[in-house]
This record gives sequence, structure tokens and C-alpha cells, in this order.
Amino acid sequence: MSALRETFINELRRIDSLSQISSVLGWDEQVNLPSSEASSSQRSSQSSALAEMVHREFTGSAFSDLLKRLEDETDEPDKDLEIILREVRRDLHRAQKLPNEFVARKAAHESSTYHVWKNAREKNDFAAFAPALDKTMQFAREEAAYGGYGENPYDYHLDKHDPGMDACAIGKLFDDLQIGLVLLAEQILSLSEETAIPELKGFPKDKQETFLREVVESLGFDFTRGRMDVAVHPFCSGNGSDTRLTTRYDSDNPLDSLFSAIHEAGHGLYEQGLPHKWLGTPLGEAAGMGVHESQSRIWENQVGRSPAFWNRWEPRFREIFREPLADISSEQLFLAINKVSRNPIRVDADEVTYNLHVILRFELEQALFAGDLKVEDLPSAWSEKAEKLLGLQPTNDSEGVLQDVHWSGGAFGYFPSYCLGNLLAAQLWEKAMKEDVPDPSDSSKLLSWLQLKVHRHGKRMNLLELTENATGDSLGPRCLLQYLESRYLSLYRKTN
Amino acid sequence: MSALRETFINELRRIDSLSQISSVLGWDEQVNLPSSEASSSQRSSQSSALAEMVHREFTGSAFSDLLKRLEDETDEPDKDLEIILREVRRDLHRAQKLPNEFVARKAAHESSTYHVWKNAREKNDFAAFAPALDKTMQFAREEAAYGGYGENPYDYHLDKHDPGMDACAIGKLFDDLQIGLVLLAEQILSLSEETAIPELKGFPKDKQETFLREVVESLGFDFTRGRMDVAVHPFCSGNGSDTRLTTRYDSDNPLDSLFSAIHEAGHGLYEQGLPHKWLGTPLGEAAGMGVHESQSRIWENQVGRSPAFWNRWEPRFREIFREPLADISSEQLFLAINKVSRNPIRVDADEVTYNLHVILRFELEQALFAGDLKVEDLPSAWSEKAEKLLGLQPTNDSEGVLQDVHWSGGAFGYFPSYCLGNLLAAQLWEKAMKEDVPDPSDSSKLLSWLQLKVHRHGKRMNLLELTENATGDSLGPRCLLQYLESRYLSLYRKTN
Repeated sequence: MSALRETFINELRRIDSLSQISSVLGWDEQVNLPSSEASSSQRSSQSSALAEMVHREFTGSAFSDLLKRLEDETDEPDKDLEIILREVRRDLHRAQKLPNEFVARKAAHESSTYHVWKNAREKNDFAAFAPALDKTMQFAREEAAYGGYGENPYDYHLDKHDPGMDACAIGKLFDDLQIGLVLLAEQILSLSEETAIPELKGFPKDKQETFLREVVESLGFDFTRGRMDVAVHPFCSGNGSDTRLTTRYDSDNPLDSLFSAIHEAGHGLYEQGLPHKWLGTPLGEAAGMGVHESQSRIWENQVGRSPAFWNRWEPRFREIFREPLADISSEQLFLAINKVSRNPIRVDADEVTYNLHVILRFELEQALFAGDLKVEDLPSAWSEKAEKLLGLQPTNDSEGVLQDVHWSGGAFGYFPSYCLGNLLAAQLWEKAMKEDVPDPSDSSKLLSWLQLKVHRHGKRMNLLELTENATGDSLGPRCLLQYLESRYLSLYRKTN
Repeated sequence: MSALRETFINELRRIDSLSQISSVLGWDEQVNLPSSEASSSQRSSQSSALAEMVHREFTGSAFSDLLKRLEDETDEPDKDLEIILREVRRDLHRAQKLPNEFVARKAAHESSTYHVWKNAREKNDFAAFAPALDKTMQFAREEAAYGGYGENPYDYHLDKHDPGMDACAIGKLFDDLQIGLVLLAEQILSLSEETAIPELKGFPKDKQETFLREVVESLGFDFTRGRMDVAVHPFCSGNGSDTRLTTRYDSDNPLDSLFSAIHEAGHGLYEQGLPHKWLGTPLGEAAGMGVHESQSRIWENQVGRSPAFWNRWEPRFREIFREPLADISSEQLFLAINKVSRNPIRVDADEVTYNLHVILRFELEQALFAGDLKVEDLPSAWSEKAEKLLGLQPTNDSEGVLQDVHWSGGAFGYFPSYCLGNLLAAQLWEKAMKEDVPDPSDSSKLLSWLQLKVHRHGKRMNLLELTENATGDSLGPRCLLQYLESRYLSLYRKTN
């Protein structure tokens, strides 16, 4: 590597080190921060001072000059370096296009908007949130105008989370999925509503932790390079050198903590599987939100809710929780694990109806950006779509339009990644099962396969390219529909 | 406040926010960091990238220009601002005098030296550490030459930890203390060696935690602005908005965890007592290492080992630890709490002999900087002084010259603060007991008194000024000697 290339990579890594600190601060805020107002306000000052520094370092002339000198270098081409440069340029152009005063103005608005949303949600009062959300929408349009987009300002936000995707492509995928999924979900729901599914109650929290640590470790999560703690909203943060998962415990809902932990561990396995030698560069970073979500979902759902997985883990689960499981048969337990029900809340939804929640939000975001829907009309539009897609109507705003935090932080274009991840997860699973990984009970083989097909590539390919490359097929709804049908329809038909 | 003053304070606070992040990273490294080499090497990159940024922000032209404009401002004088400017100038001049290449060279040497020391200590082999330590000494001289000093390069390092102190002043204080203390310690030791003092064994760790959380909270530590965790070496970090204590648990040494926790809580009470409105400026910062240590020591020793404290806490201690205390009388327990013994290790020393350990190190540092002692001759000089001061000789280098981490990190001039803190603690205690706080069992009164006399002043006064101001007397050995004599000599005389 030329001296100039080395200097560039080192500088890139130095800036990445600084931005990784944000992730430590964010984790600490969720897991450890004392409760006083003084503590949280200090943390907020620290985070914003750091974010501003990182932005300044990245967009400053020193780094841009280095990039330019490297681009002018006439050495023989290097494929790895080309990809790093492509991604750095993409991020840099995006960052440089936003004026500092706009970034500061937007950040100030968003930090106050979070509290407006929180209060409005507590009071079930969308009208109290609408003016702030309307302003957030204006910021989102303004940002897209600065950043540039093809046909639709919404595209700018979608591309932020999943490079290469736009509203038109996602719309087509979701339309195709919707046709089959609404029907399939109705079939499964009508069967499940006739099925007695037990509730799991009285599972001591410390024993839950024992069990799920065993599970997470057995999936291949490396605790010498990571940890697991408790947070109100489960998440995974950090990178492969220090991967931090969180979950939460409810003694009357052991499956929530377990599947939250497996989900976050899936994100963690991806981070730990990214090529260590490229850490701190785009080749050591996740390909995008959709791909990341495919990795959490495949472990949570395709693996974690499978008969093979529970054949292996049920004896240990019963050994640890002898009493609360005493009157619950294996069949009943498996039904509880694969319970499907009509639920207005996305984060509590099963994997059959989950994607319909996402499609609902995508369609609303699309209409907002197209100017076909006003912010003030969101609640009625929400109800209408919920009726159509989920067969229910929220009884109040907190069960509907106010349920998610995303919009309060201006994170438009984020929801679709959840569903794109589910599509990819189903395709990877089918491919792995059919061809490469014949024994579905051995998760170490699946992990090696995912490392080979997904993890080791970093940002080399985007979601669509990676899907083609790993599965030999383009991203589409077939596999997900077949997977849901074969797992759920047959389960509930057998039971009824 | 003028707009310029406000801009200056805000900028000072912004830079302080960034440097507080270092403290979060340091805490996290001790408490949470996963064990892999990748994790620690990443944290080390993060910390050094951040430290470099903070240094650049503080010493950069933008901040210096702001300071200069403020100094040229002809507004009416403001006493608070004058103190802030005095301290900022002091720190800034010091920071600006060190060339960046020197700082980087020194940091690289020190980070490798820590591992050399650790290995040498494991192998009891000072010769393996001596060449690195010799180089560390050269860096310390070079730094003092850049930074400037009066008579002695050692003064530069002493002043770093306790503004206003120098080797001559400390030497005089320690000489005076030594005369009385060596004799007193011999008297107490000869009595204690004839006394049967029980060992405390089999104290469950979770119950230890329960007990010491109650104690720390009752002393006034505010857990809504702080927390307590486990670390190998106990410490306190953060500031009054987020104060983090650590301790460690050994089921066969419950007093170690308890007094470590009370000691660190003393540091924490000081941080939480500093004026909140000035946080992020020198008026919201500790006056120096010696004053900080006085606050940890007064709670650990004067309060925590007092009869009044144990009159209050013994019933609860026995309630929690009924079994392991079953055969131990109140008198025996109090002896265990106030055990004095000959110990080669500073951190395990009782409060009677502790200061002799410090004097030993001060005298060696002084001789090293004066050129009267070569690094290679440290072990024999150590043995000689240990014999004279402590009446013992280390049986190997790990029990002697290799026991402390400080020198491996170039922290010369740090040890004396421990003893200066003990001197001040004894003076504050005498003053508080004699005049202002008649009821020694009520620690909330003592805390209020310390807040009034010490905490609220921030860096307004240095150690010597603060001692005069709070106690009406100059810093000296009398109070400490009288306190040790009255507590220990009478305890052991009564027992024998």
C-alpha cells in the first residue's frame, strides 16, 4: 500500500474511532446513566459536542484534501480501495451538502420534538404532536433538497438507510408482498383465533438471563468481544471489537426477553462477522439497514422459532423452568412461541403480521412526501390502512399513529428496512436450507454460511446486489410468503 | 454577563464536555470492557483520538483568541471570572508549552511502559523495568524543562497535582511529620502486635453490597446523580452530574470493600458538592489532588473508623452478617476495623503507617530528580528507607519498588498528595469537632460543614489557602499526629 493510501486509511480510522465513541455514550445512556435531569442534560451536551467534532473532522479541508490527493494518485487500481473511496465519497458529499446552520437548527428541533411526542403519546393526543411533526416534515424536505434526489424527496431518506433503494422499487416489492400476505395472514389469523394458546407466567428474571445467555453464546456470539445488559428498549450497538446487546426481562413474558436477545444477537453476529482487518472503513461496515435486519430476523424467526431449535433447547428450558412449565405441553409451548394474533402495536406483532405494519407506514410516508396526505390527516389515514391491512382499527392515537418513536426524531424512510430485511432473511434461509446447510439444527453451519455470503463483504455490495450474489435471485416476496405459509399455516391447520 | 464572557464560558464548557467523555470511556474500560485484545486496543485508539482532539481544541487559536479578547475587555472586574481566567491561563500555558511531537512521543513510551512494568512485577524483576523507567524519568525532566519550574524539575510535577506546592514545602512538612510519626507508629505497632485481632471471613458478596450501599447513601451520596459498580482497582470518576464510584468484593475481606467504597464515596461527595452552576469551569472543579484526598480520607478514616459511626452501624452490620459475626465481640470487631500492622504494601496499609509509605516515595522521587539517586539503585534505596520508616524490608521487588503503577505512567509527584490529604483531613476533622459540628454521629452535619468550608469553593483557593481559610491554621502535622495518637494509642493501650 502506498504511503498516501496508508495515511488515508489511518485518518479514516481515526475519525471512525471518534464516532464509535458516540456509540459508547449512547449505550451508556440507555444502560447506566443516573436518573437525574443533570445527568441526562450533561450526556446530551457531551453527545452533541462530540457529534459536532466528528462532523467537522470528516467534512474539514484536511480530510477532503487527502481524499483528493488519493484520487489523483496514478498508482495501479486497487479494488478494495475503490470501494472504500466510493463509500467515503458518498458519505462525504452527503455530509458536505448540509449547511452547518441547517444541521444545528434541525438537531435543536428534533431534540425538543422527542419530548413533545412522548407527552402526546402519554395523553393519546395526536393534535398536540401534529404541529411539531409538520415542522419535522419540512426539515426532511429541506434536507432532501440539500442532499439531492432523483424523482422524489422520499428517495433521499430511503437511500440513507438502504443505499440503492428508492420509493418506486420498494413500492413494487411491497405491493407484490401485500397481495399474498393480506390473504395469508387472514387465513392464519382465523385459524389461530380458534386455537387455545397458553400464556407463560412466573418465569424468574435471573433464570431467564441464565437461559438466554446460554442460547446467545451457543449461536456463536463472542462474549470476549461483547456483552449483554438490560435496557428498556432492546438494541445492539458498537462494532465487532466491542458489540453490546441489550434485552429486558418481564417475569410474565419470558419469550419477549428471549427473542429480543436472539434478535439483537443476530445484529451482533453480523457486526462480529464483518472483516476485522477492515474495521473502521466501509469494508468493515454493514451493507445497510435492510441487510442488518435480515441478520437479526433470520436468527430470531427462521432459526429461533423453528422446531429444530426447540428440539434442541426445550429440555434445557424445562430444566430451568420446571414449575412454570409444569402444565404446558410441548405442543402448547411451540404454539406460544409461534403465536399469531391481531395486534395494533408493531413491536409486539408476530412475524406474519409484522410486515403489514411496515407496509402501512411506508404507504403513509410516501403519501406525506408526495403531498397527497397532510400531517393533520394522519390518524384517519392510519385507521383506514390498519383496517385494510391488519383488519383492525386502533382504539386511540397511542395504539396508532403515536406508537413509534421514529418520526419524532425525523427518521423517515427507516421503517421499510425492517420488511426488506425480512424478505432477505427468508431468501437466505431458503437458499441455505435447500443447498448449502442441510442440517438446520446446527446453527454453527448457518453462521459460517452467513459469514461467507453476507458478513465478510462489508459494504462491498448493497442490499439488491448482495441478495443476488448470495441467493442467485433478485429480492422479492416469494420466499417470505412460502416460508410463512409452510411454518404457520401448517402449524395451525395441524393443531385445529 | 457580557456576550463575550458568555461565549467564553460556553466554549470552556464545550471543551470540558469533550474531556468529560474521556472519563466515561475510562470508567467503561475498567467496569465494562469485554476481555479481548481487540476490545482494549480499540478503546485505546478511541481514548487517544479523543485526547488529541481535546488538546487541539483547547490549545487552538480559536480558544486562545477568545481568551485574549476577554482579557482585553475593559468591563468592570468580576471576581469569579478572574479566578476562572487565572486557572484557564495556567492550564493553557502548560498545555501550549509542550510540543505536540513531545506529547505523542511521551504517550507512546508510556503506553508500552505500562506493560513492561506489569510483566516485571509479575516476575519480581526490577532490572527488566529499569531501562524503561529511566527513559520515563528523562521524559519527566524534558517535560519540566518545557513547562518551566523554579528550583527543581520535581517542583513542576508536584505543582501539577497540587497547585502552589513544591518539593521544599512538602519536604519540610514531611520531615516534621516523620519525626513524630515513626515513633508513634512504633509504639502502636508494638502494642498491636501483642493484640489478638480477629479475621473476618465468609461474608457473602451480595450482602456486602447491600450493606455498603446503605452506608454510602446515608453519608449523603446522591445515587440519582451517580452510581456504584465493581472494578479491580476502586476509583471515583466523573463529576457532580454523573459521579461513578467503584469498589470490589472479597468474601474474606468485607472491610476492604466497605472502606474502599466509603473512601471513593468521599471523593464522590466532593464532586457532588462542587457548585453546580459552575460545572465545566475551574470554579466547579476540585482544588487539587491533596484536597480531593482529604475528602476521601476524612470519610474513610475519621468518620468510618470512629466509635460513633460503629455505634450507629454495628447493629445493622450484625443483622446482615449474623453468622460470620457470631463469635466476634463488639470490641474485637472494632479492633479489626482499626487494625494496625507492618505491611510492605501501601494500598493495604492502615492509616497509621500509610503516610510513611508516602514519605518513602517522596524522598526517592526527590533524590531521582536531584540526580542523587540512579534508577538502577532504586531497589536498594527502597529497602534502606523501608527499614528506617516502616521497620521492614520488602522480600522482593513486587513487594517493594514495583508495587505501584504510578511511575510506569510517568506520574511523578502524585504520591505526596495522599499524605497532604491526610494532613488536611485531620485538621478539618479537629476543627469540625471542636467548633462547628458538635455531634460526630450525625454525618449530615459534617457534610454540610465540608460543603461550606471546602466544596463550594471549587478551585478558588489552593491547598494551602484552603487549609488556612477552613481551619484558621496553616497545613502541618500536629492534628494528624494527635488524631492518630488519640485514636490508636488509647485503643491499643485499653485493649492490652
